Amino acid sequence: MATSNIEDFEKGNAAFVEAFDQDTTGALAIPPQRKALVLACMDARLHPEKVLGLEIGDAHVVRNAGGRASADALRSIAISQRLLGTQEVVVIHHTDCGMLTFKDDDIRSKIRDELGDSAGDAADGIAFLPFSDLEASVKADIRIIKEAAIVDGDVPVHGFVYDVTTGRLNPVN
Amino acid sequence: MATSNIEDFEKGNAAFVEAFDQDTTGALAIPPQRKALVLACMDARLHPEKVLGLEIGDAHVVRNAGGRASADALRSIAISQRLLGTQEVVVIHHTDCGMLTFKDDDIRSKIRDELGDSAGDAADGIAFLPFSDLEASVKADIRIIKEAAIVDGDVPVHGFVYDVTTGRLNPVN
Repeated sequence: MATSNIEDFEKGNAAFVEAFDQDTTGALAIPPQRKALVLACMDARLHPEKVLGLEIGDAHVVRNAGGRASADALRSIAISQRLLGTQEVVVIHHTDCGMLTFKDDDIRSKIRDELGDSAGDAADGIAFLPFSDLEASVKADIRIIKEAAIVDGDVPVHGFVYDVTTGRLNPVN
Repeated sequence: MATSNIEDFEKGNAAFVEAFDQDTTGALAIPPQRKALVLACMDARLHPEKVLGLEIGDAHVVRNAGGRASADALRSIAISQRLLGTQEVVVIHHTDCGMLTFKDDDIRSKIRDELGDSAGDAADGIAFLPFSDLEASVKADIRIIKEAAIVDGDVPVHGFVYDVTTGRLNPVN
């Protein structure tokens, strides 16, 4: 087992608290200032706020493996739109994504081999949502969001591929 | 419909690209340097990387409405652990969370009223995962992660409540 990062995270948070402005940042209301929601991959090299120039309070950020429009992402988008007033969605996938490197059967076998048969049986029933074409995956997720019953059909949905080697967001049209 | 943010986001990205170091940041490998995964709420006031002092490349970040251990979050955690070597999970919920302000029936009615009956019918089948007690929701999600078949049972799972008025992470034990 790795040494825990918790001490470092607590030190990182102490420095953040030291610089935190309670009168401005600490007084922000719940609804995102820019009325936007970003759906992005969990990848460690993609910090959506930095990449888009978002300040604290600007936008909802939903992230998962791949930045996929999963049922859970749609749940989050519906809550964001109906209860907190967001009116725009930005989908960000990225180059060199781990989701390009495997198929469902690969991770199911790996789970069975490393965690045992009951884990393997559970994994056999799960779609892990890998993909083989970046632009196609962005387009597929935009379509899922636009067509989802619980998502507002009038809200624009934009797509980008983030290049992890240059920091650049390339639009997907 | 709101004016689109896209022009501003593209300007924000251009500034980010300008400052991006391709030799260091651009050369990072896929696996998170700190072998950690953070599961946090999508709230606009919670920037997990800033709050924890995470650099680009340090950790996977999974986010959804509430920072809940949904089936999709477990999918992401399994991919992170089995394919990309993370060995620690940090769950972050936060004060003044939107998820404290409604029940499933409230959002289902709102979706039906604002998006129509077919949207309402779809919403009736969805658990939106609101909660009424912050520490209890963190503990519940830690338990779900620890007990999930597809998650490595030996991996430590830590919990925090982020105070949006002070920037402080308060541990949940």
